[in-house]
Amino acid sequence: MAAQPEFEHPRKAFGWAARDSSGLLSPFKFSRREPGEKDVAFKVLYCGICHSDLHNVKNEWGTSIYPMVPGHELVGVVTEVGSKVERFKVGDKVGVGCLVDSCRTCQNCSDNLENYCPQFTLTYGAKYKDGSITYGGYSDSMVADEDFVIRIPDELPFDAAAPLLCAGITVYSPLKYYGLDKPGQHVGVVGLGGLGHMAVKFAKAFGAKVTVISTSPNKKEEAIQNLGADSFLVSRDQDQMKGAMGTLDGIIDTVSAVHPLLPLIALLKYHGKLVTVGAPEKPLELPIFPLLIGKYMKNISLNKIQHKTFVMVHKDSLVQKSNIYAHLKIKIKIKS
Amino acid sequence: MAAQPEFEHPRKAFGWAARDSSGLLSPFKFSRREPGEKDVAFKVLYCGICHSDLHNVKNEWGTSIYPMVPGHELVGVVTEVGSKVERFKVGDKVGVGCLVDSCRTCQNCSDNLENYCPQFTLTYGAKYKDGSITYGGYSDSMVADEDFVIRIPDELPFDAAAPLLCAGITVYSPLKYYGLDKPGQHVGVVGLGGLGHMAVKFAKAFGAKVTVISTSPNKKEEAIQNLGADSFLVSRDQDQMKGAMGTLDGIIDTVSAVHPLLPLIALLKYHGKLVTVGAPEKPLELPIFPLLIGKYMKNISLNKIQHKTFVMVHKDSLVQKSNIYAHLKIKIKIKS
Repeated sequence: MAAQPEFEHPRKAFGWAARDSSGLLSPFKFSRREPGEKDVAFKVLYCGICHSDLHNVKNEWGTSIYPMVPGHELVGVVTEVGSKVERFKVGDKVGVGCLVDSCRTCQNCSDNLENYCPQFTLTYGAKYKDGSITYGGYSDSMVADEDFVIRIPDELPFDAAAPLLCAGITVYSPLKYYGLDKPGQHVGVVGLGGLGHMAVKFAKAFGAKVTVISTSPNKKEEAIQNLGADSFLVSRDQDQMKGAMGTLDGIIDTVSAVHPLLPLIALLKYHGKLVTVGAPEKPLELPIFPLLIGKYMKNISLNKIQHKTFVMVHKDSLVQKSNIYAHLKIKIKIKS
Repeated sequence: MAAQPEFEHPRKAFGWAARDSSGLLSPFKFSRREPGEKDVAFKVLYCGICHSDLHNVKNEWGTSIYPMVPGHELVGVVTEVGSKVERFKVGDKVGVGCLVDSCRTCQNCSDNLENYCPQFTLTYGAKYKDGSITYGGYSDSMVADEDFVIRIPDELPFDAAAPLLCAGITVYSPLKYYGLDKPGQHVGVVGLGGLGHMAVKFAKAFGAKVTVISTSPNKKEEAIQNLGADSFLVSRDQDQMKGAMGTLDGIIDTVSAVHPLLPLIALLKYHGKLVTVGAPEKPLELPIFPLLIGKYMKNISLNKIQHKTFVMVHKDSLVQKSNIYAHLKIKIKIKS
C-alpha cells in the first residue's frame, strides 16, 4: 500500500487538493521530500491558475491522479538550499513552471530542451523518479531540483511573475523561435485572453507591430489602449479581414476552441507563419488546396491567399491554457 | 468578338486542345505572337503530362477556358531570339514551366519569387497582359519572354528534363528551403508517384538518408532497388510505423488524396518538418492537442508524438500534380 501523502516524506506541507473529478478543491495535508544536495526549498507565495489546472482537476483529459494539488506557475522565496546548489541562496525570489525533472540524458535534454524530453516530470499529477506523486503550487511550500527552478528578478512583482512560467513562455518562445521578435515584423495575435495579452505585450516589447484579431469587438479598447496593440480586427467582419489580407509576417493563434484557419492564413504574407498555441480538442481543418492555387479559387475571399504558408504547432510550456481571460487577475495566495 | 485563335497572332501554331470538359483533346490550329525583343521562340519537342492538366482539361477546378492547349513542362530547341535577348541563342536547349509572365514590380517579383506574384501568368489557360489567351506545351512551338525560359543543359535528355519544370521544382524547392538537402538529414517521402520519386532522387543526390512511406508494399522494390531509398515503410503497418517514430528530420508528403497527418507527424523528430506538396481537395485534419501533450494521450500510438512540429504547405511550381505515377513515362512528342 502506498504511503499516506502526509507521511510519505519528512517535510510537512499544506495545499488545496482535488480528491475527485467534481471540480472542488479542499484542504490537504501532504509532505515534501527532504531537500537533497541539488534541491531548492521555497515558500510558495503566489501561484497562477491555468485553465489546464481546471481540466486536470475535473479529469477532462483522462489522465488525472487524485488527490491532486494543481498549480504550475508557482513563485516564492527560497528557504533552504542543498549543499551543491550553485545558483540560489536563501531569500532569493524563485519560481517553478510546468516541469520539475526530465531524463537528463536524451538529445533534447542535452540541447536544453527538457520540455521536449519524452520522460519529463510534470510539476503536479505525475511521478518523480522514486515513484512518489508530484504536487503543484496550490500549496505552501515546494522542493525542486535547482535545474528546474527559475530566478525571479527582484524588481518583478511575484503576482506578475507567476503567469510568465507557463502562459508567458508559451507565447514568448514562438515569437523568438520564428523570428517575430524584431522591429519590422508585423505580428497578429488571435484571441486576447491569458496567452494573447501576453503575446501582445511581448511582441510590442520586441518592437514589432501588433494586430489583435478577435471575435469580440469589445476587446478593441483593451487591445489598443491598455496593451498597446497597433490595430484590431474583428474576425467576423469580412471587410476588415479582407482589408488586412497579406499583411502579417506571423500569427500567434491562442484560440483553444475549434476555429477555421483559412481566414488567418489569408492574413499572412507569403512565407508567413501561423503558430497555434491553443489546444482545440478536435482537429482543425487545414485546407491545402486553396493555399496552393488560391488565386484561382472562385471565392473572392481567397483571391490573394498565400501560396506558401507555415502552420506551426508550438508549445514550450507543455501545459496548455484555454479560456484563461482571468489568468492574470486571479491568484492564489496562501499564507503569504 | 474575340479574334479566332488561328488568326489572333502572326505565327501559326498547332497543338492539341480540349474544346470542352469531356476530357478529349483534338487537333487545334492557333497562333503565337511575333517574338518581341525580349522573346525566345522555340520548337517544342517534349512536354510532360501533369495530372493538373487532366484536372484543367475536365474543368475540375472550375477555372478552365476553352479551347485549352495544356502543358506546362515543355522543352525544345530555340529557333529565334529577340534583339535584346541576352541569355539564349538559336539552337539552345530550353524549356518553359508553369509561368510565362508576372507583374515584375511586386515584392515577390523583386525577390525572384515570381511564382508568388499575385498577378502571375500561367503557361496555359490564362491571359497575357494584352488579353490574349495563353496556350501551353501540347503544341509545336512556343514564344516566351526570356525571363521565363529555362536553360536545359546539353547533357540532359529532353524527356528527362521536361518533368523537372513542375514536378521537379515542386520537391526540389522544399528540400532546399527547409534544410533537408544535406548529409545527416533523414527525409521521409510519402507517396512514390511523379513527385515522390523525384523527391527520393533529389534527397539522395543531396546526401540525405531517405525513407519512403507508402500504402503499397509493392512499391518497396521500386523505392529501394531502383531509386536508392534507404528504407521503406508501409503506412498501414502499425508496427513498422511505430518502429520508425521520431526518426525523420522532415517529410515531403506528395499525397493528393485526403489522408491523416497524425501518423506522419509521429514519424518526425522534435522540430521535424512536414511539408505537404499534394493538393487534397478537402481540408486535412490537423490535430493540435496530441501534438501538445501527446505523451499524456492514452492512445499508445501517440505516446512519443512531437511537442513541436511544423506542417508546411509548400508549392513553388504552383500547378499541382496528383496521381502522376506515369508522369515520367508519358511524353507527348509532336513533330520532333
